[in-house]
Amino acid sequence: MTTISEVSLSPKEIRKLIRDGEFKRPTSGAAAGYVQANLAILPKEYAFDFLLFCQRNPKPCPVVEVLEPGQVEVSVTAPSSDIRTDVPLYHVYENGKLSAEISNLTDLWKPDFVSFLLGCSFSFESALINNGIRLPHFESGTNVSMYITNIPTVPAGPFSGPMVVSMRSIPQEKVVRAVQVTSRFPGVHGSPIHIGNPSAIGITNLSQPDFGDPTVIKEGEVPVFWACGVTPQSVAMSSKPPIMVTHAPGHMFITDMKDEDYSVL
Amino acid sequence: MTTISEVSLSPKEIRKLIRDGEFKRPTSGAAAGYVQANLAILPKEYAFDFLLFCQRNPKPCPVVEVLEPGQVEVSVTAPSSDIRTDVPLYHVYENGKLSAEISNLTDLWKPDFVSFLLGCSFSFESALINNGIRLPHFESGTNVSMYITNIPTVPAGPFSGPMVVSMRSIPQEKVVRAVQVTSRFPGVHGSPIHIGNPSAIGITNLSQPDFGDPTVIKEGEVPVFWACGVTPQSVAMSSKPPIMVTHAPGHMFITDMKDEDYSVL
Repeated sequence: MTTISEVSLSPKEIRKLIRDGEFKRPTSGAAAGYVQANLAILPKEYAFDFLLFCQRNPKPCPVVEVLEPGQVEVSVTAPSSDIRTDVPLYHVYENGKLSAEISNLTDLWKPDFVSFLLGCSFSFESALINNGIRLPHFESGTNVSMYITNIPTVPAGPFSGPMVVSMRSIPQEKVVRAVQVTSRFPGVHGSPIHIGNPSAIGITNLSQPDFGDPTVIKEGEVPVFWACGVTPQSVAMSSKPPIMVTHAPGHMFITDMKDEDYSVL
Repeated sequence: MTTISEVSLSPKEIRKLIRDGEFKRPTSGAAAGYVQANLAILPKEYAFDFLLFCQRNPKPCPVVEVLEPGQVEVSVTAPSSDIRTDVPLYHVYENGKLSAEISNLTDLWKPDFVSFLLGCSFSFESALINNGIRLPHFESGTNVSMYITNIPTVPAGPFSGPMVVSMRSIPQEKVVRAVQVTSRFPGVHGSPIHIGNPSAIGITNLSQPDFGDPTVIKEGEVPVFWACGVTPQSVAMSSKPPIMVTHAPGHMFITDMKDEDYSVL
């Protein structure tokens, strides 16, 4: 559990706790109001194509910051940070398979590593809650339901594959407001990809998500689907790069940017 | 002059006219309502850093599409196009100096060329006009005034330098509306960078623009400044790549995307 005092710590203070090994949990709720980011680290050889993939698929892959080869400080959105130590838990993939779960990258780091920080749904979920739209998975502490769709991403170099979406069950009278609220945040997935009928986007069984926990859809609620940050990871993995490092699910990188810095209008 | 009949041609039809050498003029007003783009072509060696520069500076460098090395079809935003032939006039720069002005790139093309298409202000200018905001440079057929500011861009690899802005003189009662209207188009420069006092952003003499034609500011008008697509070209040029190809000013690439495809909310 994130304690009340941690909610009021600054991103910089929390990154220091993480770096010192004193914060090893998922980051949900920590540094409330600040943008948290998904992490993907790839060798330079893959960097142009992966950045191109993100540019071509901005809804599942909203780029928050990309570091230059070997750069470890997230200098624009989190000055004085260190990407090798400031994420609570990392996943290491070799040839597309999980090979290690580690708490820092100091020994593993190579000068040709390029770090990609991509927006995550925490920012727009806060905006939904602030607009009176309840998110049951927040209250129950479970994970949002995620599904592999039949919507193709736009390929780039070796990267291609279907879009992964997250689903939130929204009371029907709040669906329009949910579209408006999340449209203000194109930098962190933005507006929904789809509203209603799951089979229209290739989801055959809503009660069996491909990732995360199942969601109970109540009477009068509509399933609403947003592009999900799992997409770039799953796409990168399927191209089986020799090495790729990501954050462990829920263990995000916390930037100094406020959610509102990513809003339009 | 663009004729009335050309205004009603589709982007694909105009690209064919350009390819066949039957349209050699600036593209302003052609295919009204469709997104036109700035072009920058660089060798693969520079592509990651230049894409990173664009990602870090989205207001002056809004990416519409990037092609893979050697790719000539703008496959996402203009299927069946050819970037070597579908711009009315190209500028070729060698080591940062203009070396040729040519109407197609067929002989010059190399398999490691990476083409960047970046948003241009035509889209948001149409939106301003549709909202009752007159743009005198449109009516007089002169070029918008552009200035080199003291606002630094965020560097990437060899690319760095000051931001170039364009200025439009807006009646004071329309300034708020101009901010709202252009905020809807973050993909084509978006909201203004600055409103009012030119010296606050390092412009010492408003009547002497660094590029384009001077603007007369009338009583009751306020100068409003937007990030300008000249920025990435001037930044790329100052790093003196062995070769770089751009569109000639005003001779843009016309995509199949509508301005409204780039709006939020």
